[in-house]
Amino acid sequence: MLMKTASQSLAEQLAARFAQRIRDRLLNPGARLPSVRLCAQQQGVSPSTVVGAYDQLLAQGLVEARKNRGFYVRERTPAPVEYAQAAIKSIAKVDQEDAPAVRHRAPLNATALIRGMFHGISDKPQPGMGVLPKEWLQTTFLSTAVRRSCSVEALNAFSLQYGEPAGDLGLRRALSTKLAGIAVQASPEQIITTIGATQALDVVSRTLLRAGDHVMVEEPGWAIEFARLEALGMRILPVPRRADGPDLEVMARYCEAHRPKLFVSVSVLHNPTGFCLSPSSAYRVLQLASQFDFHVLEDDTYSHFAPEHATRMCALDGLQRTIYVGGFAKILAPNWRVGYLAAHPQLVERLLDTKLLTTLTTPALLEKALAWCIDQGQLRRHTERIRVRLDAARARSAKLALSHGCTFAAEPVGLFGWVDTGVDTDVLAQRMLDEGYLLAPGALFHAERAPSSLMRINFATTQEAGFWDTLVRLRAEQ
Amino acid sequence: MLMKTASQSLAEQLAARFAQRIRDRLLNPGARLPSVRLCAQQQGVSPSTVVGAYDQLLAQGLVEARKNRGFYVRERTPAPVEYAQAAIKSIAKVDQEDAPAVRHRAPLNATALIRGMFHGISDKPQPGMGVLPKEWLQTTFLSTAVRRSCSVEALNAFSLQYGEPAGDLGLRRALSTKLAGIAVQASPEQIITTIGATQALDVVSRTLLRAGDHVMVEEPGWAIEFARLEALGMRILPVPRRADGPDLEVMARYCEAHRPKLFVSVSVLHNPTGFCLSPSSAYRVLQLASQFDFHVLEDDTYSHFAPEHATRMCALDGLQRTIYVGGFAKILAPNWRVGYLAAHPQLVERLLDTKLLTTLTTPALLEKALAWCIDQGQLRRHTERIRVRLDAARARSAKLALSHGCTFAAEPVGLFGWVDTGVDTDVLAQRMLDEGYLLAPGALFHAERAPSSLMRINFATTQEAGFWDTLVRLRAEQ
Repeated sequence: MLMKTASQSLAEQLAARFAQRIRDRLLNPGARLPSVRLCAQQQGVSPSTVVGAYDQLLAQGLVEARKNRGFYVRERTPAPVEYAQAAIKSIAKVDQEDAPAVRHRAPLNATALIRGMFHGISDKPQPGMGVLPKEWLQTTFLSTAVRRSCSVEALNAFSLQYGEPAGDLGLRRALSTKLAGIAVQASPEQIITTIGATQALDVVSRTLLRAGDHVMVEEPGWAIEFARLEALGMRILPVPRRADGPDLEVMARYCEAHRPKLFVSVSVLHNPTGFCLSPSSAYRVLQLASQFDFHVLEDDTYSHFAPEHATRMCALDGLQRTIYVGGFAKILAPNWRVGYLAAHPQLVERLLDTKLLTTLTTPALLEKALAWCIDQGQLRRHTERIRVRLDAARARSAKLALSHGCTFAAEPVGLFGWVDTGVDTDVLAQRMLDEGYLLAPGALFHAERAPSSLMRINFATTQEAGFWDTLVRLRAEQ
Repeated sequence: MLMKTASQSLAEQLAARFAQRIRDRLLNPGARLPSVRLCAQQQGVSPSTVVGAYDQLLAQGLVEARKNRGFYVRERTPAPVEYAQAAIKSIAKVDQEDAPAVRHRAPLNATALIRGMFHGISDKPQPGMGVLPKEWLQTTFLSTAVRRSCSVEALNAFSLQYGEPAGDLGLRRALSTKLAGIAVQASPEQIITTIGATQALDVVSRTLLRAGDHVMVEEPGWAIEFARLEALGMRILPVPRRADGPDLEVMARYCEAHRPKLFVSVSVLHNPTGFCLSPSSAYRVLQLASQFDFHVLEDDTYSHFAPEHATRMCALDGLQRTIYVGGFAKILAPNWRVGYLAAHPQLVERLLDTKLLTTLTTPALLEKALAWCIDQGQLRRHTERIRVRLDAARARSAKLALSHGCTFAAEPVGLFGWVDTGVDTDVLAQRMLDEGYLLAPGALFHAERAPSSLMRINFATTQEAGFWDTLVRLRAEQ
């Protein structure tokens, strides 16, 4: 709610709010601002206040007026060297080439969700958030784990050289055992630690692909994955994700037409749907991989919430054509940034080279601390506690969603719900921001942004009626 | 020295030694093994033992015999998916295109030096090493710095969310002050922390360049930089580095012909020569950058050993077209992997997106610890101690080099010496490995590997006559 103050007029406050959102890219270049009338109504101010605010945004060069069509967020202003222009040119150049399925988009929207989370939207639980709330992750054993390795002697022992290129051996041993528990056979020598699962995904893409290569990615899928591949100049072939796995007919057609080099899949508790791969789909994907000679990157980010005996392609194929990627950001300490990959011994060498070229080594302190948490059983016990809590939260959240007129596009499991709101969630997300809620609109999960009535919710952060009541109210205005 | 044992024949031992070196890529694909006669002489065994060893390597598929020309290390065997072949194809494809100055090479050699250092070549000080010896870096304040941030409360406060995308604000403030001390004006908002200077260099390249773009890099230069740019599909334009700066005439010709997007430079204490940029060269590079519209990446990795009032382009240009990259691996704790970049505010936003796509955030624990080391003056005092020690080591090492018949291709300053041995250092490096010394041969510092009689030495690790005596003995055999 805007309130007039001595130092700032209502128009100034409204302009400042839009300006911040544009800078944070919670309002993307090309997005249309609400009409003057609608904005006045939404904000409870007079139309002349809105006109004043939009005029200020115009003067600041943040928006542009299009004749008879309203106000639109401008592309970002070019820096001294005209890189914006260069980027557009390079995108345009690629667009002229063949491959109808190729899609390109600057990585503007993808990072906004994450960056938005750090700008202190509000103190409310954030439904669009990708991790568990801080309170859930509080433990005392993380501190114990770190303190074990930070005596003068311990720290000097591993800090004063670059360290092992593949990562701390103790952690790789612990991970090898952990993987065996989900039937993925990987020796410590087949494992490389990374800065979160994110670097693992990046290292694999950079090692296996060259700019212009085709890569199959599940859709809906995680925006950061689309954005990274696009930034690397790859041609994304979006594969519709069904309840039992990727759409195999679409995959087969892509294989025939484009000979993709890689398929990126979140097999288990797929983000955002929560779908888990069926054994028969897994087998058929691997058959396709063999027939058309591509690698499969299996992103197992949500493994700690996964059902027992979930099907993983890496387990079936024994890391022949598959590469396993895992991390701990969803269960332990997101900021520790410890992830890893496991691959065929011959591929590991090449992946390790890429790791060296991108970050040299990775910090051993947190890897050692994590290894201790695994070896002592702390991680397992913590995971059990979190799973019980998440089950309860999911039941509450799902009930609230349904009672507030939403439906689930996929059965509620794991961390995320894939919810149909019945209205355009891009528009809804802007309105919810005014109320301090950051949503993850459905459009974010597509290679090419298009209107969607879906959104991804985090079950742990959507247990309060207040959020759902606000959503119902703003949806009615839409 | 090979010694017959009960379990292994001399031939087996010799074969195993070569096999390990091939796997570690200390012997690169395409490299020729010494002739049977020479090898027998070098190793003090009979020619038939060498023939037996080479036969084993043949049988293991590690080398191939070329008729009348001897034995050569094979290209690595392809994995299930023929990526080796794909990589060669993609390189061949680019080679067919224009640009005579473009050079391509698989990143095989570049990482060998670093990886070799972790395989425990021997217990001797390693002359090719890129960092100070562990003993030099031992301190007690690193431990104090970490312990301050690892109480249960402190750790929970920053570990349980992804953290600030740009990196810990306390560290960025400390870095801003530190940069002001060398006349580089950057607010904390213009600074992004990274996983070592390595990630900073990677993030800048990925943000400013697309595959196929031209980039100017000083030659000689750091192999990892060449390898990374090549792996990203960039076209490297090697600019000869002179004592006062890059060869400006060559740069001007490249600019006319190829319109490069970026110039990568180690202005101060250039690796491997130790050259420092002169003010007039700096000014002229910036003029060129303005005229031909390219960015300048100034890699200040060796800043802690730098002479006072050294000229930095970032200071002159005020981060308009320049991007500053720094790190702490050379002075504090190489494994902590804390580096950073500073850039124009508008460019920072794009660089931050790239960081998010590659590692999301970076671990705050070590960033906070480093900030404390800077703020408490510990880093400054430690740097002063190290500089005094390095000055003494350099004097001793330089004296030994000269008295053992080597000359300096550049005045000995900073951490590294650029030494002329008078013989092919690629060959010498293989022989020195037999004696447990890992060299950094001159060929490693060129975009295209070519024989060189130069090598880079680390002054801190070449103070013993034993190393120089060995070098003189093996050089005489060459």
